[in-house]
Amino acid sequence: MTSPVSVLGISNAIVDVLAHVDDEILTEIGAPKGSMTLIDQEQAEKIYALMGPATEMSGGSVANTIANLANLGGKSAYIGCVADDQLGRIFVHDMQALGVDVVLAPMNDTAPTARSYILISPGGERTMNTYLGACMELNPTHVSARAVAGAGLVLLEGYIWDNPQGPAAAGEVMRLAKENGVEVGLTLSDSYCVDRHRDAFAEAIEGPVQMVFANEKEIMSLLGTETFDGALSRIRELEPLFVLTRSEKGSVIVNNKTDVIQAAVPVEKVVDVTGAGDAYIAGFLYGWTTGSSLAESAQLGSERAAMVIQQVGPRLEKTN
Amino acid sequence: MTSPVSVLGISNAIVDVLAHVDDEILTEIGAPKGSMTLIDQEQAEKIYALMGPATEMSGGSVANTIANLANLGGKSAYIGCVADDQLGRIFVHDMQALGVDVVLAPMNDTAPTARSYILISPGGERTMNTYLGACMELNPTHVSARAVAGAGLVLLEGYIWDNPQGPAAAGEVMRLAKENGVEVGLTLSDSYCVDRHRDAFAEAIEGPVQMVFANEKEIMSLLGTETFDGALSRIRELEPLFVLTRSEKGSVIVNNKTDVIQAAVPVEKVVDVTGAGDAYIAGFLYGWTTGSSLAESAQLGSERAAMVIQQVGPRLEKTN
Repeated sequence: MTSPVSVLGISNAIVDVLAHVDDEILTEIGAPKGSMTLIDQEQAEKIYALMGPATEMSGGSVANTIANLANLGGKSAYIGCVADDQLGRIFVHDMQALGVDVVLAPMNDTAPTARSYILISPGGERTMNTYLGACMELNPTHVSARAVAGAGLVLLEGYIWDNPQGPAAAGEVMRLAKENGVEVGLTLSDSYCVDRHRDAFAEAIEGPVQMVFANEKEIMSLLGTETFDGALSRIRELEPLFVLTRSEKGSVIVNNKTDVIQAAVPVEKVVDVTGAGDAYIAGFLYGWTTGSSLAESAQLGSERAAMVIQQVGPRLEKTN
Repeated sequence: MTSPVSVLGISNAIVDVLAHVDDEILTEIGAPKGSMTLIDQEQAEKIYALMGPATEMSGGSVANTIANLANLGGKSAYIGCVADDQLGRIFVHDMQALGVDVVLAPMNDTAPTARSYILISPGGERTMNTYLGACMELNPTHVSARAVAGAGLVLLEGYIWDNPQGPAAAGEVMRLAKENGVEVGLTLSDSYCVDRHRDAFAEAIEGPVQMVFANEKEIMSLLGTETFDGALSRIRELEPLFVLTRSEKGSVIVNNKTDVIQAAVPVEKVVDVTGAGDAYIAGFLYGWTTGSSLAESAQLGSERAAMVIQQVGPRLEKTN
């Protein structure tokens, strides 16, 4: 039976501020190229002042997945904290315009809506500096029991563990999901995030999480292995399904019972790799929640990832 | 002698909200395809609710010209009204990041910063719905005598006549420019705008305006002629220099003494025609204010127009 809502995403609700920069700026602000660094308001103002003219668009990892899932026709819902300001209204509009059920209203009396200052290097690599703002408010009271119970699967992102009450909110999601027989998926966000929360993620994976999304660096960091093959060996002892993306090497879906190897979909020209993982997860979950096999779901994921890296920005153009 | 500031632009300061739409939406909101319609806050909310996920970036016609001029290395300044809100700060950042001297600080106690909801049809044509917001505040007290006197040329856009005290502000600009021996340029904005303010524009052109920028439709509307050749005949009786852009037919620069015909620069693929005229003016004025001939300036204008129509959005990527 298909649930009324196939996937409920819970994540940091962020508006991206994108600009092309010279690599000197990265040195000046001390950000490793390709990293995601959390910054405070003062640093946000400093970095913004160093950036050239920018473009603003809604972003956030699992938020991008939910948007891309809705774009495919999946009925999805979303929990994330934005302030009742112009950027918050932009974020909510961009979700609702795709038919996503946005569970939380924009909040008053909080820090402003979160922004990620995304510095695009001449080679196309992206360095993200994220001011969490209103996202920091996320707490267990925001986790609607009705929304969790009404979903087929809830998708958590590792980044929410960075918020003061994020671990408690994630705990509440997992508790409610278990109580209502709802599947739990977790995406590991980035390898620095895994470094920050390795024990908490390991615990969630030994507990209620049934589906883990990660790239090679993230899974190796989580399992403390030197090689991807080493990580695969460890995974074969574990219960959850691991959906592992490997850029141009495709993806692998594996646990102690299953083994699916999926090739990447070839692309003519890579324009912008941001959001490839998020788009893969959207395609995969669209397949999985509509009754496709793992292999078919992986194929859908690869197709969406291929589409998103041939455009600028992490959300696919509206197609329906 | 080169002035410290080559061009001071005075215009509506607008943030663009861009989304791809089906043409049914245009029918639903009653906007002729390709037009610019002024809307109030209620209509703005209605249109935004009908739009898909959007991208936000700074826009505004003469504001785009000033940004593109600064991008070329021209020292420029800008007067336009934004509110002290997130979109206003984005607008000011995007100007300052290019080195533009932004004369007015964001304002408190006004309507929010102006937005233009830009609906992109499947064929690439753009229909603009502009909520003027804080722009409506523009009045003669915003016209800094020091800024006008310090410029080589002031560039006005026709759209500012749409604001309640816009004509008075434009009058103050022209008075101060005359008093200080500063050249005055006027861009006619769009043919609907010419319809709204034909007499005022004609008066300005018979008076202090020395340089008029227009496309074919605008100049024919202004001079009430059926054909472009008819407009050219009328222009030969007039004093100001007319810089007329004709899309793929190039441009013509003409008055009672001068005649320059410039071919368009060929492009491989037109991606988005928005801002072609604004970019042309930027290239032209960069040439003109740095001592190039009219023909060289026209060539620079054609090159910038060709560049901008091969990218998305009206402002060229930062190149310096």
